[in-house]
Amino acid sequence: MTDLVIIAAISIFTAGMTVSFGALGPALGEGRAAAAAIAAIAQQPDAAATLSRTLFVSLAMIESTAIYCFVVAMILIFANPFWDAAMQVAAGG
Amino acid sequence: MTDLVIIAAISIFTAGMTVSFGALGPALGEGRAAAAAIAAIAQQPDAAATLSRTLFVSLAMIESTAIYCFVVAMILIFANPFWDAAMQVAAGG
Amino acid sequence: MTDLVIIAAISIFTAGMTVSFGALGPALGEGRAAAAAIAAIAQQPDAAATLSRTLFVSLAMIESTAIYCFVVAMILIFANPFWDAAMQVAAGG
Amino acid sequence: MTDLVIIAAISIFTAGMTVSFGALGPALGEGRAAAAAIAAIAQQPDAAATLSRTLFVSLAMIESTAIYCFVVAMILIFANPFWDAAMQVAAGG
Amino acid sequence: MTDLVIIAAISIFTAGMTVSFGALGPALGEGRAAAAAIAAIAQQPDAAATLSRTLFVSLAMIESTAIYCFVVAMILIFANPFWDAAMQVAAGG
Amino acid sequence: MTDLVIIAAISIFTAGMTVSFGALGPALGEGRAAAAAIAAIAQQPDAAATLSRTLFVSLAMIESTAIYCFVVAMILIFANPFWDAAMQVAAGG
Amino acid sequence: MTDLVIIAAISIFTAGMTVSFGALGPALGEGRAAAAAIAAIAQQPDAAATLSRTLFVSLAMIESTAIYCFVVAMILIFANPFWDAAMQVAAGG
Amino acid sequence: MTDLVIIAAISIFTAGMTVSFGALGPALGEGRAAAAAIAAIAQQPDAAATLSRTLFVSLAMIESTAIYCFVVAMILIFANPFWDAAMQVAAGG
Amino acid sequence: MTDLVIIAAISIFTAGMTVSFGALGPALGEGRAAAAAIAAIAQQPDAAATLSRTLFVSLAMIESTAIYCFVVAMILIFANPFWDAAMQVAAGG
Amino acid sequence: MTDLVIIAAISIFTAGMTVSFGALGPALGEGRAAAAAIAAIAQQPDAAATLSRTLFVSLAMIESTAIYCFVVAMILIFANPFWDAAMQVAAGG
Amino acid sequence: MTDLVIIAAISIFTAGMTVSFGALGPALGEGRAAAAAIAAIAQQPDAAATLSRTLFVSLAMIESTAIYCFVVAMILIFANPFWDAAMQVAAGG
Amino acid sequence: MTDLVIIAAISIFTAGMTVSFGALGPALGEGRAAAAAIAAIAQQPDAAATLSRTLFVSLAMIESTAIYCFVVAMILIFANPFWDAAMQVAAGG
Amino acid sequence: MTDLVIIAAISIFTAGMTVSFGALGPALGEGRAAAAAIAAIAQQPDAAATLSRTLFVSLAMIESTAIYCFVVAMILIFANPFWDAAMQVAAGG
Amino acid sequence: MTDLVIIAAISIFTAGMTVSFGALGPALGEGRAAAAAIAAIAQQPDAAATLSRTLFVSLAMIESTAIYCFVVAMILIFANPFWDAAMQVAAGG
Repeated sequence: MTDLVIIAAISIFTAGMTVSFGALGPALGEGRAAAAAIAAIAQQPDAAATLSRTLFVSLAMIESTAIYCFVVAMILIFANPFWDAAMQVAAGG
Repeated sequence: MTDLVIIAAISIFTAGMTVSFGALGPALGEGRAAAAAIAAIAQQPDAAATLSRTLFVSLAMIESTAIYCFVVAMILIFANPFWDAAMQVAAGG
Repeated sequence: MTDLVIIAAISIFTAGMTVSFGALGPALGEGRAAAAAIAAIAQQPDAAATLSRTLFVSLAMIESTAIYCFVVAMILIFANPFWDAAMQVAAGG
Repeated sequence: MTDLVIIAAISIFTAGMTVSFGALGPALGEGRAAAAAIAAIAQQPDAAATLSRTLFVSLAMIESTAIYCFVVAMILIFANPFWDAAMQVAAGG
Repeated sequence: MTDLVIIAAISIFTAGMTVSFGALGPALGEGRAAAAAIAAIAQQPDAAATLSRTLFVSLAMIESTAIYCFVVAMILIFANPFWDAAMQVAAGG
Repeated sequence: MTDLVIIAAISIFTAGMTVSFGALGPALGEGRAAAAAIAAIAQQPDAAATLSRTLFVSLAMIESTAIYCFVVAMILIFANPFWDAAMQVAAGG
Repeated sequence: MTDLVIIAAISIFTAGMTVSFGALGPALGEGRAAAAAIAAIAQQPDAAATLSRTLFVSLAMIESTAIYCFVVAMILIFANPFWDAAMQVAAGG
Repeated sequence: MTDLVIIAAISIFTAGMTVSFGALGPALGEGRAAAAAIAAIAQQPDAAATLSRTLFVSLAMIESTAIYCFVVAMILIFANPFWDAAMQVAAGG
Repeated sequence: MTDLVIIAAISIFTAGMTVSFGALGPALGEGRAAAAAIAAIAQQPDAAATLSRTLFVSLAMIESTAIYCFVVAMILIFANPFWDAAMQVAAGG
Repeated sequence: MTDLVIIAAISIFTAGMTVSFGALGPALGEGRAAAAAIAAIAQQPDAAATLSRTLFVSLAMIESTAIYCFVVAMILIFANPFWDAAMQVAAGG
Repeated sequence: MTDLVIIAAISIFTAGMTVSFGALGPALGEGRAAAAAIAAIAQQPDAAATLSRTLFVSLAMIESTAIYCFVVAMILIFANPFWDAAMQVAAGG
Repeated sequence: MTDLVIIAAISIFTAGMTVSFGALGPALGEGRAAAAAIAAIAQQPDAAATLSRTLFVSLAMIESTAIYCFVVAMILIFANPFWDAAMQVAAGG
Repeated sequence: MTDLVIIAAISIFTAGMTVSFGALGPALGEGRAAAAAIAAIAQQPDAAATLSRTLFVSLAMIESTAIYCFVVAMILIFANPFWDAAMQVAAGG
Repeated sequence: MTDLVIIAAISIFTAGMTVSFGALGPALGEGRAAAAAIAAIAQQPDAAATLSRTLFVSLAMIESTAIYCFVVAMILIFANPFWDAAMQVAAGG
């Protein structure tokens, strides 16, 4: 196997695993927060505005960990510095 | 094995694993949020509109992590930059 | 092993795993949402229409992650771009 | 090993795993929904018709993920396009 | 190893695993549904007929996933198309 | 290793694993159903007949998945079609 | 390794694993059923006879899955048809 | 490695694993049953005799699965038929 | 590796694993039974004698499974029949 | 494989795993904290300011562990000292 | 590798694993029993003496399984009969 | 592979795993503590100062385990004594 | 690899694993006991002395299993009899 | 690979794993204890001093297991006796 293929294969595999493992925690955490918010609004409809605001801030915070994973996966597929370095070597070799 | 086959095999395997692992968390999280919303509507039917709106925003947020996975799987199958690069090399070699 | 066989084997294995792992989360999530809806209808029969509507929207949303997996599995079996590329090479070689 | 045997072996293994892993989630989800329906009918016998209808729709929805798995397993055993292609090659070779 | 032995070995192993993994989910799901039905009959003996009917429909639905597994296992042992094809090749070879 | 030994080894291993994994789910499910029945009889002794009947039907249903496993294990040990075919080949070879 | 040793080794390993994995589920299920029965007798001492009878039937049912495993293990150690066949071959060889 | 050593090694390993895995389920099940019995006696001291009798029957039943494992382990160490057969071959060889 | 070393290595490893895995279940089961007994004595101090007696019988029963494991480990280290047989062969060889 | 490729491959794989495993704990922890805050605001709307402040401090604290992981992943991709050292050797070699 | 090194390596590894796995169950079980005792003393301070005595007997019983593991680990490190036998052979060889 | 590359690869892999596994426990523990604090403030707003102080001390204590992991990861990447020693050898060799 | 290196490597690995696995159970058990003690003191402040004494005895008992692990790890690093024996051989060889 | 590299690699890997696995238990245990303390202070603000003292003693006790792990990791990185011995050999060789 040439060096380029090794880097390509490991990048593809890692990108997929990163984004799929990284979806597990945030999805469960957001589901819990959303469930709590919905139950809270039903219990105290007058505070719906405050509750929604708190929910959205929390969802954004939790989603951020999923976005870290997505960003890393995108970097590995489209802006992989190791791949670029290997391409330069291959082009110049 | 030629280089093309390695990239094809790892892309196929990763695409499938990404989308199937990535379905676990969102499905459980959405199930929890939906269950909470349904219980809340039964308890406070007057707030059904607010509750539905909160539920749909939450479902969209949770679904986003599943969509990240689906997008990455589609990229790996239909717009894989490593495959394109390898095809160019094979075509030009 | 020829290249075609490798791609065929990995596609078969991945298609099956994708659809079976992808069934776990949605089935559990839908079971939870359905259980909540049934308990809610028993508790508040007057809101059955609203509850059913919310349930069906939620089930559709959760089912979507299972459908992503099924779609990917079908693509891998019947419309696999890597297989097509390899067939063209084999036909033209 | 000839190519045909590899495809046959991986198809057999994948078909069995697909249908058995795919039975886990739906069976648990349906058990949960059914338990909720039975408890709900005992609590509100007058709404038995609505509850049964909701239960059957939910069971059908959950069962669908198990059926996806069964369909994929049947395709892999009886209508495997990769096997057909390999048979044609073997017949024509 | 001849090709026939590989197919036989993988069929035996897959058939056993399919039916044993496939028994886990349905057995747990049916246990849950049955427990709910028994508790419901104790709580509302007058609705025993409706409850039994709902239970039996649910058990049949859940059992279906176990039966899918049993059917696949039986096909793999007694009506395996890959084995038949390999036998024909061996007989005609 | 001769072909016969491979088939014998894989049949022995699969038969044992099938019957032992297949005992897990049914035993837990039956334990749950039995516990529910016993609690229900204590709570409503007058309905003991109905409850026992429902329990026995449920136990039979759950036990069926364990019996599928036992049947497959017995087939693999005492009526294994692949072993018979291999014996015929060995006897006639 | 001679063929006899392979069959002996796999039989020993499988027999042990079968009986030990097969003890997990029944022991937990029986523990649950027994706990329910004891709590029920404490709550309704007058129904002790009915409860004991139901418990013993249930324990027998659950124990049956453990006995399947024990039977298979004993068959593998003391009445293994594959071992007998291999011994005959070795004796006649 | 001579054949005798393989059988000795696999027997030692299997005996230990059998008895240690086989201790997990019964110990947990007995703990649960004992806890229920103790709580029941505290709640209903007058029924202590009936409760103790039910507990001891249940413990004996649960312990039986651990004893199956112990028996198999002892057979593998001290009365292993495969070892005896191999010793006879070695003595007569 | 000489035969003696293989038997020694597998005996050491198995003895340690047997006693450590075998400690998990009994320790948890005894902890549960003891917790129940302590809570029961606090709730019904007058029945402390009966409760202690039931606890000690139960602890002895649960401990027995741990003792099976300890006995097997001691046999493997200090009275291993396979080691003795191998030593005799080595001494007489 | 050249040394550079080994370092590139292990850096890519580690970066992805770090950020995806590292998202699991914080997402679940933040979901729990957010759910508690939302329930608390619904219960005590007057203390919303104090509760929000406590929530944000806690979220920041929990998020810090996810950020450690993201930082390490970024260092491994864009500022990897081992890669720099290997590049210098390769450039100077 | 000489025989002595194999025995030394496997003894070191097994001793460590034995004592660390063996700490899991007893620590959890003792934590549970201690928590129950503390809650019981708070609820019934007059019975503190009886409760403490029961707790200490139970802790000793649970600790015994951890001590079995520690004893086996110490035997493997400081009084390993297989090591002694191998040393004698090495000294006399 | 040169020695330097082995040390670099294992350092990169270990640093990432250390910080990502090390984030799991603290994040969950802090989430639990924060949830308790928020619920407590809602229940007893007057004690908010004491509760916040206790929370912050606890968070710092829990965070310390995550910081141990981060410190070890940073040492492995930027101040690795084994790498320094290997660099000296390489520079002086 | 020389014999000394094998013993060193396995000792390092085992020491680390022993102390880290051995920290899991005691930390969880102590957390549970401490939580119970704190809740008990809040409920019955008058019995704080008795509760603290019981807590400290229990913590010491639970900590003992962690200390066994730490002791074994320290022995493996600083007073390893197998290492000493190997050093003597190496020094005298 | 030279001996030094093996010891360095295994030390790096073990140090990281030790400190990250060792953080799991203490973080969860401390989170539980802290949550209990916070809830207790909210319930009984007058006993805050006693509760804080008990909490800090417990946290110190639990943290000790994490510190054992950190100490072992630091010893493996900065004061590794096996590394020192190997360095002496290398320096003197």
